[in-house]
Amino acid sequence: MTKNQQFRLASRPVGMPKRSDWDFVTDDIPQLNEGEILIKTSFISLDPAMRGWMNDAKSYIPPVGIGEVMRAGTAGEVVASQNPDFKVGDKVSGAWGVQEYAISNGKGIVKVDASYMPLEVYLGTLGMPGLTAYFGLLELGLPKEGETVVVSGAAGAVGIVVGQIAKIKGCRVVGIAGGKDKCEWVVNELGFDACVDYKNEDVKKGLRAACPQGIDVYFDNVGGEILDIVLAQINKYARIVICGAISQYNNTTPMRGPSNYIQLLVKSARMEGFVVFDYAKRYPEGVMQMAQWMREGKLKSREHVVEGLANFPETLLMLFEGKNTGKLVLKI
Amino acid sequence: MTKNQQFRLASRPVGMPKRSDWDFVTDDIPQLNEGEILIKTSFISLDPAMRGWMNDAKSYIPPVGIGEVMRAGTAGEVVASQNPDFKVGDKVSGAWGVQEYAISNGKGIVKVDASYMPLEVYLGTLGMPGLTAYFGLLELGLPKEGETVVVSGAAGAVGIVVGQIAKIKGCRVVGIAGGKDKCEWVVNELGFDACVDYKNEDVKKGLRAACPQGIDVYFDNVGGEILDIVLAQINKYARIVICGAISQYNNTTPMRGPSNYIQLLVKSARMEGFVVFDYAKRYPEGVMQMAQWMREGKLKSREHVVEGLANFPETLLMLFEGKNTGKLVLKI
Repeated sequence: MTKNQQFRLASRPVGMPKRSDWDFVTDDIPQLNEGEILIKTSFISLDPAMRGWMNDAKSYIPPVGIGEVMRAGTAGEVVASQNPDFKVGDKVSGAWGVQEYAISNGKGIVKVDASYMPLEVYLGTLGMPGLTAYFGLLELGLPKEGETVVVSGAAGAVGIVVGQIAKIKGCRVVGIAGGKDKCEWVVNELGFDACVDYKNEDVKKGLRAACPQGIDVYFDNVGGEILDIVLAQINKYARIVICGAISQYNNTTPMRGPSNYIQLLVKSARMEGFVVFDYAKRYPEGVMQMAQWMREGKLKSREHVVEGLANFPETLLMLFEGKNTGKLVLKI
Repeated sequence: MTKNQQFRLASRPVGMPKRSDWDFVTDDIPQLNEGEILIKTSFISLDPAMRGWMNDAKSYIPPVGIGEVMRAGTAGEVVASQNPDFKVGDKVSGAWGVQEYAISNGKGIVKVDASYMPLEVYLGTLGMPGLTAYFGLLELGLPKEGETVVVSGAAGAVGIVVGQIAKIKGCRVVGIAGGKDKCEWVVNELGFDACVDYKNEDVKKGLRAACPQGIDVYFDNVGGEILDIVLAQINKYARIVICGAISQYNNTTPMRGPSNYIQLLVKSARMEGFVVFDYAKRYPEGVMQMAQWMREGKLKSREHVVEGLANFPETLLMLFEGKNTGKLVLKI
């Protein structure tokens, strides 16, 4: 009998998570009941939001319980089925967590066409990060042709899609990313107009130079000081989409609030929080549109693949260390 | 020849303004030219925003220049006219600043019907503060029947109108004000459902008790710690209207940013800045609607009148000391 390997939450991290915050356990795989399927995981999605799910705090979804399998987006293949809707060999995506195998009744499991796009793309550009970018930018950011759109975490899974969609919509697009390589990549490969390297540049000056007409839309994945710098450069009626605040997730002190928030008043501007789950009914629309853009060559995907379930803790930390370019996934 | 008395900005205050930040000067009134009118000031509006206008900072309007008459909303009477649109005896409102007389070409001067409402009401409920409440609450706050609306600075010129309009719209209305008298007044006289006394109560607990269904709309006039406390109690899809941040205007250190702003993400909520000037074309609509509510007894106005132009500096400071109840005006 095949065994299952799982990362289960062992304790709530203080600051940066460490390996001992999870138990890496091996367990039997129980018999399938009527209506159930057994899925073998191929890819596990690593997302900044996972840090928040480890805290014992009320949020848009409940925290992961101590002893529970660590929540994560996943893609894999059906290897046994007692459910008429799924057959062995089906490629599927879902959120069955950081484990090698999962048993499911099919709820929340979506069949995907892996002959059409590599399976891992359904965790990135055609998955939650891509949908986050799509609905967050278009529904809250409301970019108009000719406007300037700034996105932080520009080389991350969400940022790369935000920037490319903003280009499709005819905007000037300026990224903020950490390191020369990432910045050059989003400009040269993804078509951003400019990118400010926050690790090696004065962000304030860099943005002023890159956004001579000011900032109309800011898609924020990082929070912290950069949010304040952007607020000081927004235009009248600017829209700020709060998608994340990765710079603050491992704080052991309270989050830094944007002391320039009063610029919202000065500029009649708006700051709005975005959670992709609010748009669940419209996911198919987003996936179809982005798949079409991919076919047309207007939207490029990139996955940063690390191998080995056992490497989950250290791989997750790469997000907070800014070590990934594109969508970070763990290949099992 | 009558002389004119004026407060002119002498220096940019650091922290709380003091009398020496203005020069109180007496000057000749020049001859009227063709097209001009001479207005004698009856009332000067004292507003928290005036503090911001004294700073040398880019904002929604330029700062008052050193040596210029201090900007203020005003109401008065035409005492001489070389302009066919105005005749002696016309009651008018405008923003000719902290002075006893003003010469104007008529631009920005609005004739008001003082037989209908006392002139000072046109600086409060039927003036900028009332219009701020009307458009800020209805256009950005989007209150729906049965929702809970919280307003800070509840006993101030804007707050009293916000709360009463929210009641007209069928909301549960909770004020935040400083002192037992103010709190009792907004509840007993203006019909608020509850009011939290931030000077004598734990605001967090007080709001929890007064808002058992959470907070759907927050109209913020104060900023600071109270904004953070409210953010922790907002509902899904809440709207926060940033109208002011009086608690922070006299800071000598950077403003306090709302460290709980990430609740916007958790709750898919929005924070939006409001400047009444954006709605200038719709002022008549707001004035007509509010005047109708006043006639129907649904909307009460209250002015806090202090006499004497010479008392301008100390009277302005009453706003920051929380000493006014209702619209603070200086009677000349």
